[in-house]
Amino acid sequence: MGLQQLLDPESVAVVGASGTEGKIGYAAMRNVRGFDGPVYPVNPKRAGETLFDYDVVGSIGDVDGDVDLALICVSPPVVPDVVKKCGAAGVGGAVIYSGGYSEAGKQGAELEAKIADIANEHGVSLLGPNTSGFINPPTGLCASFVPHMERVGAGSVAVVAQSGGINHSIAFKAFSDKRGVSKAIGLGNQSNTGFSEVLEYLDGDEDTEAAVLHVEGIDDARRLLETCREINLPVAAYKVGRADVDDFAASHTGAMTGDYELYQAGFKQYGVVTADSCTAVFDAGNALAKVPKPTGTNVGVVSAQAGPGIVMTDRLKRAGATLPPFSEETRERIDDLVGDITFTENPVDTGRPMADIDKVIAAVAGDEGVDIVLVYELYEEGIPYPIKGLTEIADSHDKPIIFATDGPWDVLQDKIEALEEAGIPAYVTPERGADAVAALVQYVERNQVASEVTADD
Amino acid sequence: MGLQQLLDPESVAVVGASGTEGKIGYAAMRNVRGFDGPVYPVNPKRAGETLFDYDVVGSIGDVDGDVDLALICVSPPVVPDVVKKCGAAGVGGAVIYSGGYSEAGKQGAELEAKIADIANEHGVSLLGPNTSGFINPPTGLCASFVPHMERVGAGSVAVVAQSGGINHSIAFKAFSDKRGVSKAIGLGNQSNTGFSEVLEYLDGDEDTEAAVLHVEGIDDARRLLETCREINLPVAAYKVGRADVDDFAASHTGAMTGDYELYQAGFKQYGVVTADSCTAVFDAGNALAKVPKPTGTNVGVVSAQAGPGIVMTDRLKRAGATLPPFSEETRERIDDLVGDITFTENPVDTGRPMADIDKVIAAVAGDEGVDIVLVYELYEEGIPYPIKGLTEIADSHDKPIIFATDGPWDVLQDKIEALEEAGIPAYVTPERGADAVAALVQYVERNQVASEVTADD
Repeated sequence: MGLQQLLDPESVAVVGASGTEGKIGYAAMRNVRGFDGPVYPVNPKRAGETLFDYDVVGSIGDVDGDVDLALICVSPPVVPDVVKKCGAAGVGGAVIYSGGYSEAGKQGAELEAKIADIANEHGVSLLGPNTSGFINPPTGLCASFVPHMERVGAGSVAVVAQSGGINHSIAFKAFSDKRGVSKAIGLGNQSNTGFSEVLEYLDGDEDTEAAVLHVEGIDDARRLLETCREINLPVAAYKVGRADVDDFAASHTGAMTGDYELYQAGFKQYGVVTADSCTAVFDAGNALAKVPKPTGTNVGVVSAQAGPGIVMTDRLKRAGATLPPFSEETRERIDDLVGDITFTENPVDTGRPMADIDKVIAAVAGDEGVDIVLVYELYEEGIPYPIKGLTEIADSHDKPIIFATDGPWDVLQDKIEALEEAGIPAYVTPERGADAVAALVQYVERNQVASEVTADD
Repeated sequence: MGLQQLLDPESVAVVGASGTEGKIGYAAMRNVRGFDGPVYPVNPKRAGETLFDYDVVGSIGDVDGDVDLALICVSPPVVPDVVKKCGAAGVGGAVIYSGGYSEAGKQGAELEAKIADIANEHGVSLLGPNTSGFINPPTGLCASFVPHMERVGAGSVAVVAQSGGINHSIAFKAFSDKRGVSKAIGLGNQSNTGFSEVLEYLDGDEDTEAAVLHVEGIDDARRLLETCREINLPVAAYKVGRADVDDFAASHTGAMTGDYELYQAGFKQYGVVTADSCTAVFDAGNALAKVPKPTGTNVGVVSAQAGPGIVMTDRLKRAGATLPPFSEETRERIDDLVGDITFTENPVDTGRPMADIDKVIAAVAGDEGVDIVLVYELYEEGIPYPIKGLTEIADSHDKPIIFATDGPWDVLQDKIEALEEAGIPAYVTPERGADAVAALVQYVERNQVASEVTADD
């Protein structure tokens, strides 16, 4: 099927393109303007006119050139015919924004099945129906109709959400946190393209280093799990529906949320990291995407403030991390740097931000018993973060280094960006930093389990 | 004791004031400049000079006027003498920034005990030692040496943290979220002023509507719990130390973290809401401070997007909230507004942001079976949040209304501020909104329990 054409197209048509503000066909045109390749508005009533400076054609078959992706902005009864025409014109992917299908009852389900049959026959990969779309920032493509989604920048984490709303929630939080995405995809009703197809595609996508999933419930959970095990891409999942929300969920994407505990056990067994909020699952994906693969669960913690150090230690231990004692050599190096007024076990408490905290961090990162390093430093004017030193440490050790901090966001944000660009995921609040490390610990534990399961098969 | 003089002084002296950048006595002077009242730098070596345009005096006894609060920036051996002089001069409160006391071993503990004895004898309330201080934004007072803390604005939530670092973590997160505080206090070693003294003071403070606590561990947990029950101020607590972190914690503020489960049971029984992160505890306090006291645990949910609606419903149910069916009248009103394509049970899914979503919210708020209203709406350009309508609903119903949303932070922040000013706590991400409602639900449940316990006594 045309996953490549759907998610990374070289050309895009907007079927039902409109110049009337408030219509989906208008919003789709407005948001697609940043796309690197050709854009073809399609509207039989406006053929020959221009929309947003693009020439309008009367039908998808009239486009002078190949079309990879069609953004379908027409109402449900017209969609089967549009998909048929797309298939005939060689279009490989289509997004169906409208709702009123399997989530809305029997009649809608029949219409959706009919559309899927047509798409399958022509090899068209469908996103939706009942989705707000997706974005592919590395190519400038915003195929979502939600305003401001075109501002979300490029990063190395792909978001794959069952709900369009949650897709936007996660993507906007990433944007607000000064992060980007490689893709952010709302699956909607998954009429012929679901989690497994998208994950298989993303596994080969050079822009994507980790995937984060939002899962309400799907018919074939085992297939999703097996896909997660087969691909090399690290995956973090946010499963919703621990309490009984099935009535509401079925009215949303036509799916039941299924058994929460079974999903959790499955993710654990198949090497998938789990998290329990939009923020936490992206934080986990961000760490998985940016750091070297951790090889163990031993964490070395360096904190410039004791209170946050205690918070992080507590959280890490609860998450199953080990804070091993440092080697004699490491302890001596730290004692020389910090003196004996503060706590030089693991965690190291430097007492205050210090100009050469990077030397302490280097000592911890150099300890053979440490697999992952977590650093916390409250922002203090006049004592800059050791970004250069941390970069050198990250470059010279094949170990994850995670940074956590607090301070006023307007002051922090460019420093967070600089650290992340240097391959050091950086988080505000000690809890988010610790939880990101906990995700790496989970990744190690679950992929050892996953390897054992594979070996036994 | 002089809690009022400590936390809400009319005049401040900085003992050990310095013109040398990098010294605590410099940072304290720099940060105190925004204070409404008189400031007196004290430094025998610089008497007669000026520092930051204030006249320096040689000794606290030389100040021409009353001094309520002394910020003590001198080194530990000199502190007992300074506190004695403060007491003699009628100073009622003092902050001791330096470390090296009970957290550092036997000798330090002896010094701390000596200082506390002197302070008790003279009726001086001490904050610390081993604290970065506190702020009182309604009076412009920044008695913390941490840069940028003077930027944290006035709000109605008081932060009381055992750790100075966590105090700053919570306060900066509030600032970054466009919120303020009435006070933000790092207790440090609590030599003669601890949680109970501060909470009793805050209960009578007209700027404070709720308190959030960060607790590592204290000797007299029962006294804290009894204070929480006796005061009218709603309290939310973040207890750290579920895993074993006692070695590290004792090296921090000289306290063990104690038994986490006992604390949790105590908080539950004594009417204290609990949360598990800096962000969550402030979010809880923010809701408790701003909304009318909830009278039940029945939540009505209105969501403009189904995915976030499911997330919130799941989280609320897990937290023990009830989502009751609406009355026949309410359902008819909602059906008239929304039509039957979306889910008009509780939660109501409006399908998309709609111009008159406030009418749906009004219908839910007007339902007699609903105690608390939670609204979610993804930000969409062109469909403004119904701030005016929500304000009217909040004004005409004596019920908490909580708003949750997602979108780019630069666009959202002034809208969040406007909602909060209208008495509608507003949160980014569905989870934070749901967790704030869960805190209100906990408040109702635990204060019913707390009342029962009181009645039995």
